[in-house]
Amino acid sequence: MLAEFDLIRRYFMSSQEATTASNGVALGCGDDATLLVPQAGQQLVVSVDTSVVDVHFPRAAPAFAVGHRALAVALSDLAAMGATSRWCLMALTFDQRQFEDDAAAHAWFADYARGFHSLRQQHETTLAGGDVTAGELSIGVTVMGEIPPGEALTRSGAKADDLIAVTGALGGGAGGLALWKQGERDLTHPLLQRYLLPEPRLAAGIALRGLASAALDISDGLLADLTHLREASQVGALLDVDALPLADGLVHGLGQKAAQQAALSGGDDYELLVTLAADDVAEAQQRLARLGLNLTVIGRCRETLGVSTTDQRDVSGYAGWQHFNGETP
Amino acid sequence: MLAEFDLIRRYFMSSQEATTASNGVALGCGDDATLLVPQAGQQLVVSVDTSVVDVHFPRAAPAFAVGHRALAVALSDLAAMGATSRWCLMALTFDQRQFEDDAAAHAWFADYARGFHSLRQQHETTLAGGDVTAGELSIGVTVMGEIPPGEALTRSGAKADDLIAVTGALGGGAGGLALWKQGERDLTHPLLQRYLLPEPRLAAGIALRGLASAALDISDGLLADLTHLREASQVGALLDVDALPLADGLVHGLGQKAAQQAALSGGDDYELLVTLAADDVAEAQQRLARLGLNLTVIGRCRETLGVSTTDQRDVSGYAGWQHFNGETP
Repeated sequence: MLAEFDLIRRYFMSSQEATTASNGVALGCGDDATLLVPQAGQQLVVSVDTSVVDVHFPRAAPAFAVGHRALAVALSDLAAMGATSRWCLMALTFDQRQFEDDAAAHAWFADYARGFHSLRQQHETTLAGGDVTAGELSIGVTVMGEIPPGEALTRSGAKADDLIAVTGALGGGAGGLALWKQGERDLTHPLLQRYLLPEPRLAAGIALRGLASAALDISDGLLADLTHLREASQVGALLDVDALPLADGLVHGLGQKAAQQAALSGGDDYELLVTLAADDVAEAQQRLARLGLNLTVIGRCRETLGVSTTDQRDVSGYAGWQHFNGETP
Repeated sequence: MLAEFDLIRRYFMSSQEATTASNGVALGCGDDATLLVPQAGQQLVVSVDTSVVDVHFPRAAPAFAVGHRALAVALSDLAAMGATSRWCLMALTFDQRQFEDDAAAHAWFADYARGFHSLRQQHETTLAGGDVTAGELSIGVTVMGEIPPGEALTRSGAKADDLIAVTGALGGGAGGLALWKQGERDLTHPLLQRYLLPEPRLAAGIALRGLASAALDISDGLLADLTHLREASQVGALLDVDALPLADGLVHGLGQKAAQQAALSGGDDYELLVTLAADDVAEAQQRLARLGLNLTVIGRCRETLGVSTTDQRDVSGYAGWQHFNGETP
């Protein structure tokens, strides 16, 4: 039986950064709470996301991907606000009875920690707290970022005639899940990477400060998330379905029609959906190009509420992605 | 089937405080993340705690108590640091299949929210984010407090000859659990209250700033938590077992010997364990008396590492409380 303290010490506290002024840690993990030093004059940007086995990711997903993904989906919320990520807290619930023996549990845990820490370090995010408990596998990640007052991207700033754009490519989350259910297990497959190892668009969110009039991340699917943005901003939208940037391999894997459908209503893409004035699009595209990322205009906001598409398809029925939807693959 | 958005809107966003300068919220729930405004010059104090059904609380516990308790155990970590609680985030994982129908699920959820919110409001803690997911019942609570630099109580400041003291009374958590397992369900029973509705000692922690040389909260049991303090401070301890303040009803319920044992090694008490210089004890007791709380001296730190008791009992075998330890009551 693995002890909670040992696991935390071995896989989390040991890989933690030291207490330094630059990472804003005045007292690190190991006490009842952690002491952080926010930068003067910045607002804190906070969010929490839980990833549950068989709901948000398949039970057989590689542990590395489970750790990466749990942090990625939480960081994606900071990206959507344009925030700079600073700290995270990780609450892991973990069922030892799923493993043959302690060695198997340790191997899983080490791989999980590698996935979590490598993404965390890539985004200069310091682990500021954690908890490990016994139970069905689930990871709750709280993320904390900073942003100067007035610069946060919100869902409510879109205006009629603003253009609608997305970073990167869509449909990869749904396409990867479809492949996974068909038995594909090669993690180098681009669609499986999109599903299991999503990249939070933090640099893009920061680059879009001062340009995007509204933003959110696409976790529930383009149409569902566009609805959140439309409702918060009180605008309608006209989407150009043929303009949707499709994830690499998506048309090959699913065919043109299903690929477009995945881009419209699939979820787990973790791209940013933004609105901007037409005059700002070129500047935004240049800034994102420097990050190696496309920004594709896919539609336009309008005064008339509701959403329609250039090809007149019925898009009324998309309530949102149900993630892994409870089925065991 | 209850939808996540509806639950959050109905039971959490509606009871949320408005965006105001006084609660430090610049943009409330409903966007991808929440914007908070920390007070200038303060350190942030952060911690996360997960409460899992059948591990930390019984499945049949009243929903009100589940909500109260999940927040209380997290706030207790802020109390142990002497912090002022400011904000919390709540990640609820919730299994609808446990309920007969939607009405039963709504009733549970409403009662849970009442327990969570009433404690939250009592401690002027603003809900700054949340997530509701499907799965085995579990609640992850991230708490965020503030404290002036240099004033936090830590585990590492105890010195030889400091006195060891505890707030309130001990053994109530273990006593309440024992009663619960015997079938007691009357929530007005003082021991059941101690187990199911613990009170985080936030005001006491703040009152002890500048006086306590070290502090932590008793969640794993006095001996186990004293070990954490001793290891962090590199001191030993001599405990006076007859001085332990026993929870109301504990001797009556368990007998003298088991009551002392519960106070020594039971967990879930959420009292503060502190060390202070002998000269500071009277002042600390006066400050806590103003809060209606006792501070009882129960021992003394010493240079010789390890722990012993005035009655020479063997206290080497207490690795710590296993909470609800996985058994279904």
